[in-house]
Amino acid sequence: MKENKFIDLRSDTLTLPTQDMREVIYTAKVGDQAYDEDETTIELEEYCANYFGKEAALFTCSGTMSDQVAIRSWTHSGDEVIIDKSYHINYFQAGPSTDLGNILLNTCDTKDGILTVEHIEKAIQSRKRGNLFGNPKLISLENTINGFGGSIFPIEKLKEVFSYSKDKGIPVHMDGERFLNACIATGIPVKEYASYSDSISTSFSKGLGAPFGSIIMGNKKFIEKARRYRRWYGGSLHQSGFMASAALYAIKNNVQRLQVDHDNAKLLESLLKKETNISLNLYPAETNMVMIDTNNLNVTSEEFVRLCKEKGVLVYPWAPYIVRAVTNMNVTAEDIKVAASKILGICIELIN
Amino acid sequence: MKENKFIDLRSDTLTLPTQDMREVIYTAKVGDQAYDEDETTIELEEYCANYFGKEAALFTCSGTMSDQVAIRSWTHSGDEVIIDKSYHINYFQAGPSTDLGNILLNTCDTKDGILTVEHIEKAIQSRKRGNLFGNPKLISLENTINGFGGSIFPIEKLKEVFSYSKDKGIPVHMDGERFLNACIATGIPVKEYASYSDSISTSFSKGLGAPFGSIIMGNKKFIEKARRYRRWYGGSLHQSGFMASAALYAIKNNVQRLQVDHDNAKLLESLLKKETNISLNLYPAETNMVMIDTNNLNVTSEEFVRLCKEKGVLVYPWAPYIVRAVTNMNVTAEDIKVAASKILGICIELIN
Amino acid sequence: MKENKFIDLRSDTLTLPTQDMREVIYTAKVGDQAYDEDETTIELEEYCANYFGKEAALFTCSGTMSDQVAIRSWTHSGDEVIIDKSYHINYFQAGPSTDLGNILLNTCDTKDGILTVEHIEKAIQSRKRGNLFGNPKLISLENTINGFGGSIFPIEKLKEVFSYSKDKGIPVHMDGERFLNACIATGIPVKEYASYSDSISTSFSKGLGAPFGSIIMGNKKFIEKARRYRRWYGGSLHQSGFMASAALYAIKNNVQRLQVDHDNAKLLESLLKKETNISLNLYPAETNMVMIDTNNLNVTSEEFVRLCKEKGVLVYPWAPYIVRAVTNMNVTAEDIKVAASKILGICIELIN
Amino acid sequence: MKENKFIDLRSDTLTLPTQDMREVIYTAKVGDQAYDEDETTIELEEYCANYFGKEAALFTCSGTMSDQVAIRSWTHSGDEVIIDKSYHINYFQAGPSTDLGNILLNTCDTKDGILTVEHIEKAIQSRKRGNLFGNPKLISLENTINGFGGSIFPIEKLKEVFSYSKDKGIPVHMDGERFLNACIATGIPVKEYASYSDSISTSFSKGLGAPFGSIIMGNKKFIEKARRYRRWYGGSLHQSGFMASAALYAIKNNVQRLQVDHDNAKLLESLLKKETNISLNLYPAETNMVMIDTNNLNVTSEEFVRLCKEKGVLVYPWAPYIVRAVTNMNVTAEDIKVAASKILGICIELIN
Repeated sequence: MKENKFIDLRSDTLTLPTQDMREVIYTAKVGDQAYDEDETTIELEEYCANYFGKEAALFTCSGTMSDQVAIRSWTHSGDEVIIDKSYHINYFQAGPSTDLGNILLNTCDTKDGILTVEHIEKAIQSRKRGNLFGNPKLISLENTINGFGGSIFPIEKLKEVFSYSKDKGIPVHMDGERFLNACIATGIPVKEYASYSDSISTSFSKGLGAPFGSIIMGNKKFIEKARRYRRWYGGSLHQSGFMASAALYAIKNNVQRLQVDHDNAKLLESLLKKETNISLNLYPAETNMVMIDTNNLNVTSEEFVRLCKEKGVLVYPWAPYIVRAVTNMNVTAEDIKVAASKILGICIELIN
Repeated sequence: MKENKFIDLRSDTLTLPTQDMREVIYTAKVGDQAYDEDETTIELEEYCANYFGKEAALFTCSGTMSDQVAIRSWTHSGDEVIIDKSYHINYFQAGPSTDLGNILLNTCDTKDGILTVEHIEKAIQSRKRGNLFGNPKLISLENTINGFGGSIFPIEKLKEVFSYSKDKGIPVHMDGERFLNACIATGIPVKEYASYSDSISTSFSKGLGAPFGSIIMGNKKFIEKARRYRRWYGGSLHQSGFMASAALYAIKNNVQRLQVDHDNAKLLESLLKKETNISLNLYPAETNMVMIDTNNLNVTSEEFVRLCKEKGVLVYPWAPYIVRAVTNMNVTAEDIKVAASKILGICIELIN
Repeated sequence: MKENKFIDLRSDTLTLPTQDMREVIYTAKVGDQAYDEDETTIELEEYCANYFGKEAALFTCSGTMSDQVAIRSWTHSGDEVIIDKSYHINYFQAGPSTDLGNILLNTCDTKDGILTVEHIEKAIQSRKRGNLFGNPKLISLENTINGFGGSIFPIEKLKEVFSYSKDKGIPVHMDGERFLNACIATGIPVKEYASYSDSISTSFSKGLGAPFGSIIMGNKKFIEKARRYRRWYGGSLHQSGFMASAALYAIKNNVQRLQVDHDNAKLLESLLKKETNISLNLYPAETNMVMIDTNNLNVTSEEFVRLCKEKGVLVYPWAPYIVRAVTNMNVTAEDIKVAASKILGICIELIN
Repeated sequence: MKENKFIDLRSDTLTLPTQDMREVIYTAKVGDQAYDEDETTIELEEYCANYFGKEAALFTCSGTMSDQVAIRSWTHSGDEVIIDKSYHINYFQAGPSTDLGNILLNTCDTKDGILTVEHIEKAIQSRKRGNLFGNPKLISLENTINGFGGSIFPIEKLKEVFSYSKDKGIPVHMDGERFLNACIATGIPVKEYASYSDSISTSFSKGLGAPFGSIIMGNKKFIEKARRYRRWYGGSLHQSGFMASAALYAIKNNVQRLQVDHDNAKLLESLLKKETNISLNLYPAETNMVMIDTNNLNVTSEEFVRLCKEKGVLVYPWAPYIVRAVTNMNVTAEDIKVAASKILGICIELIN
């Protein structure tokens, strides 16, 4: 099986469930979610709402569904959503956001993915405003920031944006698929960090290791709207308890172990830095990612990925000259050392 | 637990997985579907494509997602889809079809849900046609027909519509969430029945008893488009193999047993007919449903459902004066006899 | 010039402006409407608001724009609009209503275009309702009813629908492009007739004879929204006063003369009835239209139109076997007699 | 009348028609455009198609309608349009582009509005590409560039973009509402300049002085699609010949006189420069606009506009600290001298 032969650093979504999680799935209590009778899903939603300090929560099929449903629940057709160009909602979801969401992505072009009050003000001024025009109805942030190597959205900056948003009467959504990585890396309590956004999503299938699923949280009115749009997007499942049980297990048991992924990312970063004269790392490894710049290696990311695969290491071509490596539950420190050594071997060949 | 106390005839989506199915889920081979690496999902898609005689298949989260993705893959914004008013795509999905699908539902108002060539021609003429206007780009049928008591779309009528559609150059989609019930009830081979539509969906979570999931099938080009829209709607999962394993088990093992549900529906129908002078059954029980007309009982469906629940029988308020009872894997012939007796008791009280 | 050789009964939109109207246009006071400075447009809007008894009014480019802007101003994406299948909003505008309006046209299939409370209730019940689904947010009526030969929507039926709509909290829009024909034909005062809808549009370029333009009227909040959507649809013009001056002239001078068109339509109807044994008229000529059924003549409407053109009479192929003749400002009673004679000649040839 | 008391530099859309133009309107040959029978509109479309060297042309109500219809004719729902943030399609039309157009505006943030191949490549790379995602289907340029003071899109840069677009298979649309200003200012023949875009629009109601209207030009297939969308947006008028006659007069008689506007803009620029030590002009006055930076004056544009109005000069608040002055047919060199003197008076007061 391919998974056994390779050290797989393409994404933390590729994590395979542990034996414990399989047993939880096996014995899950289930009912029909479409009739609001799946006990495990209800338990998961209540657990997460409480865990993040929000009034209510809604289990969804995927991070994309969480994002799209959240956008729809805050906006009407023709409204604007202010985001950074690098965010998942733009980078991967520009099609659905526009085609299904009918909203305008007003994208800021920051250097680090950290949207500040200044960026948002500039974004607001980039269009004619008033009753005759479209208006911004949502600020959507991301934490950790995928496009900038899993970097952390600093709580101080977040507080400023949140405070500004209250003045302007614009809600803030946090695309927090890897939000718990930020909590673990900073030590900031989840409830406090989450209090600076009106709604927030988080993924169970990334570092937490569940098969799939995401959750959105916010006030009751928002979640009621979201329930409707989840159904409209085809996300109203039946016996969702199987997946909810895995998600519940993941959030109860696997949050603290994100620290291991972060340690492994730092290990990979330090090994890549130590052994070469050339600059490989694009950004500091703040959580569970390392981004490699292949410009200095004179190869495209696609070619670099191919070379790594030949050596048994799987990485992901993020952009034409950027490669992403993500540490995750299926990768040990030992694997990282092997992977670093193979990657460095490739780099040295390329620059000689 | 509520499920134990009640005889639940609200829907076949409420079926709880058997022990065998749980074991299959427990040991499922999984990978990341978003990277096309979930072996079980791939196996399911290949199995179903072959089973229905189509080139390719795509696993989705729900019947709604299958329908929406199919519509999007055949149409562009502003196009028309011709359907019967009773079909799920209109009755339950009018919001998403319009809001997300951007298509016009051109609804026919038939007496039995069987769209004929005459209905379709009339529908085409109900609008001004030509380059300046929207045009019909899809005929969508349903089999079995939920809104008419799980009735069967006769293959002869289907052949006529399919032949007509080829002349007009309009593809036919079959919303076949309970299509296998029609195959079992008629004895028509699946591949033959499915050959009279360009694309077809089927559900694993209804009579087949899997927790959730649906599949769409058609030619390769259609499925390639559908893959994109599945992602846009948030249906690109990660370790989807858990659910695919249950679906695969269901389609391999549970198709023949749909006959039991059909026998039970006929039993319920005959018991309701035998014991009363009043007309209760709206339609002949051709597959696994019985529809009860509460007009003659002088109560709304909501009230009738409440009365049944008091007696331990769960049924579903389909429309203001129509109640639906669906036989399914969790209900035995013995249960049906008990349920029929309780329902009749209520009816007798109501008409006296 | 073609217009001189033919008796043109295709539509009342084809009317050419009189010399008086040309002079009004020539001397029109104009300014930039996009800056709210076109005095004539403002005067027209105030005049019409007062004339129809509404708070405010907005000049638009066309009947289609009035309808689309009105729909958008009452609804959000995914909402439903209840109409008759025959109405212009469906028959000619199904594409834009869906593609641009993002709304569901919930179409009733009446025999005469007169939507009653019963039709509307049935339409509401044709879909599953509740928070999870789309809901009806507008009832849109038409008066006179184009698809049924310019017939009149009876005020008593209108009152019932309006009263019902208030109970349900759903606004009523009147597509009143030929509303003044209904007022003239019935003698009901404009303000009274218009009081039974929340918003109403009327056309200046049909029987009233202005070059183009339409107006929508309603309360101030509605018109403020409409102003935005008019701009979005590209209908915010600059020196609109030229056209507004013609529109103002038309509504001040040409309303009473609609009676002449009605008389001419009745004349055409009686001539067609008198001279043949076959049934030609589909509907009584209540205002300025006659609809000819070509089924009994064994020709398509396209073929019948071609034959009429050969004889110097222009009529319009409304539907595959229905031909429309519309009396208008450019046609005299003498023309009608000539046209009737030619049409009858064709009919007699066809049935022999 | 306000127009007489003020020197109006808010926009060139405010120009009032000359006596000659009024006479042309008065005697216009008209027919029903909805039946393709308005001779003057047909003549205008043929004249413009030939004038710009394109196969076909379509008269529309406004620049916004031209832009929206052009976008729709090149794209499908969910596609991307690459533009500069400053362009009218984003700055004023973000709402309709998204809400009605269903497309993603992929905005570049240039310093001068001149989209280069480098900007476009970066824009393409700002999102994940491939079959699963949305893809760029149109590059839309603007000439002259409104948001940068009516500056000219250099033909050499345009050629590079057009050549690149052919390699990529992406069409180029030119929002050329003031395109003829660029032709006059550079001396480049219209046909040559227009040959570097697949479609192009131009306005009759700006420097050319017609009451309203715009035209889009391109190949026949594009114009056929545009004809449909014009109708969907409500832009299919009836006797459009009145306005087309003014437009035809404008393009035949008023192109060369744009030079006067350019001279006046340069005069205003030089007067503002000469008399102050402070930097007022944001950009060189390349055509008929001067943009004033009010940052150095410590007032918002709204406040500056108010002060100018008090002195009898009307200017437009483009952005929170940018004021626009546009020379046009209704303003003489003498007016400019008066206006410059008043504006300078205000500036001197503000900085002292």
